[in-house]
Amino acid sequence: MQLVLSFVFYLFAIIALSSTASATEPLPYLPPIPADNTMSPAKIELGKMLFFDPRLSSSEAVSCASCHNPSFAFTDRIPRALGHKHQVGPRNTPTVLNSAFLKNQFWDGRATTLEDQALGPIQAPGEMNEKLENVVVKLKGIPAYVKLFKESFGDKDPVTPANIAKSLAAFERTLTTLNAPFDRYIMGDEEAISPDARRGWALFQNKGCVGCHSGANFSNSGFFRIQVPGSTDLGRFEVTKKEEDKYKFRVQSLRNIALTYPYFNNGSVRELPQAVRIMAREMLKIEPKEDEVLDIVAFLESLSGEMPKFNYPVLP
Amino acid sequence: MQLVLSFVFYLFAIIALSSTASATEPLPYLPPIPADNTMSPAKIELGKMLFFDPRLSSSEAVSCASCHNPSFAFTDRIPRALGHKHQVGPRNTPTVLNSAFLKNQFWDGRATTLEDQALGPIQAPGEMNEKLENVVVKLKGIPAYVKLFKESFGDKDPVTPANIAKSLAAFERTLTTLNAPFDRYIMGDEEAISPDARRGWALFQNKGCVGCHSGANFSNSGFFRIQVPGSTDLGRFEVTKKEEDKYKFRVQSLRNIALTYPYFNNGSVRELPQAVRIMAREMLKIEPKEDEVLDIVAFLESLSGEMPKFNYPVLP
Repeated sequence: MQLVLSFVFYLFAIIALSSTASATEPLPYLPPIPADNTMSPAKIELGKMLFFDPRLSSSEAVSCASCHNPSFAFTDRIPRALGHKHQVGPRNTPTVLNSAFLKNQFWDGRATTLEDQALGPIQAPGEMNEKLENVVVKLKGIPAYVKLFKESFGDKDPVTPANIAKSLAAFERTLTTLNAPFDRYIMGDEEAISPDARRGWALFQNKGCVGCHSGANFSNSGFFRIQVPGSTDLGRFEVTKKEEDKYKFRVQSLRNIALTYPYFNNGSVRELPQAVRIMAREMLKIEPKEDEVLDIVAFLESLSGEMPKFNYPVLP
Repeated sequence: MQLVLSFVFYLFAIIALSSTASATEPLPYLPPIPADNTMSPAKIELGKMLFFDPRLSSSEAVSCASCHNPSFAFTDRIPRALGHKHQVGPRNTPTVLNSAFLKNQFWDGRATTLEDQALGPIQAPGEMNEKLENVVVKLKGIPAYVKLFKESFGDKDPVTPANIAKSLAAFERTLTTLNAPFDRYIMGDEEAISPDARRGWALFQNKGCVGCHSGANFSNSGFFRIQVPGSTDLGRFEVTKKEEDKYKFRVQSLRNIALTYPYFNNGSVRELPQAVRIMAREMLKIEPKEDEVLDIVAFLESLSGEMPKFNYPVLP
């Protein structure tokens, strides 16, 4: 009898565990917040202003928001970014939305935190092309900014590159997209997504997509080898110089994926069904049937959440 | 006796007229609205979306809002605009704020209405560099846009250049800046502006600035000859080819002038006191004393009204 009970217990345990593995959770209300960068209202407001301020660039015409355009789900809807003097960049602009949930930033993971990430594009010659010392001088010359830096970081020399990065990161942590139809579905509302999307979610798990696109943000933040049409980009190798990292890119979040076209590191694919076909072939070595592709697309479309709402900052 | 009464009557009439001439009115709640372009909510929303949509440009990276940046009082705070491929344009970007009150658009008045103005920058090779036929094709390919055009203009071929212009103009008519301190002052609130600003307002009238910068929008929309430091721009002549129009420019509105630096057709002057000195010398042939300049600046600062507030449009 005890043996039978033990067996039943283990059976339940296995079922429970396997169900945990394939289930997911809605996007949390807040992303992880680092212990050394508290989210004060002043700091978030400051970060928002900096995010929209083209004076952070040498031309004074390019801001973070130029490529991470809030009207386009914080990306730019062109294959590769146009930066300083409209040079064409090497890669597609990733969205800032929900990037606070990722453990690696940029396509190649050359930064891990948003704080590490924030100062890169300001200095990149093909993006905002500005020296941090110039940014600091410019900001120190604008009293309303100095006041906000003091409110955010105290009176002692608050206008520094590190604090610029912290403010931008604090603002970016507010750029999450809650209440996607899929999130309502996963919390129990069976009708929140279509039957196609439900079939797509089952396929997404059964075919193995969820192996990398896992968790509430549908990315495990890992690096995997992929070469998409037209790309010769060495990806992660550019950071580590390790042979095994050639052509590896960080797993992208799938949240809002229906809005963040075109796809892949070089922005070479504009249509979501085609992106699904390529991912299936390249990563899973499978050729899904056409109705399966469309079901997965229906599921992916259910991952579009509510855009963060805010007024334009009026800059001093 | 009748003669005396007549005399007194004429005296009062003269006083009344001269007081009317120097007084002004607060900015009206609405600008003039043309009979053939009604302001429906759908049309205003459509115009807002078009205003922020970089797909109206050939690079798909430049929108009206790129230079008419809402964070910078709908201008760009650089001397001359950076447009297609970041070419430097010939003139400083005028603000869109309150442009609905002007009877001539652009620095040289080559358009009179906002409807006439709207399609110019889309097609200008140095600005958005796009053919209108391409814009129409792109917009027709986006169902959410087609729906809004139908709601705004009816079902019969609504996506046309003329209707793009009408929507943009309808949105722009909402971009007015009410409730400036000066407006509260002129309505009777003596404390709404500083004693300096009150002296400045008196000087502004007595020195003759109000001759051209007249009316609620502080511009009579006329054309006057001015050559500012570093400018060889022929201005209005480029439109009319009349000798007498050489170096003439449309009178700029002074509303929000403290926010729309740098100044003049070539953006050559960054500081408002210097702009006042140059205007006094060039237009009125006077050299105001330094405290008079500062009083006039205090008055001009009282013309900054409330910025229009709206969420970022989320583009389809």
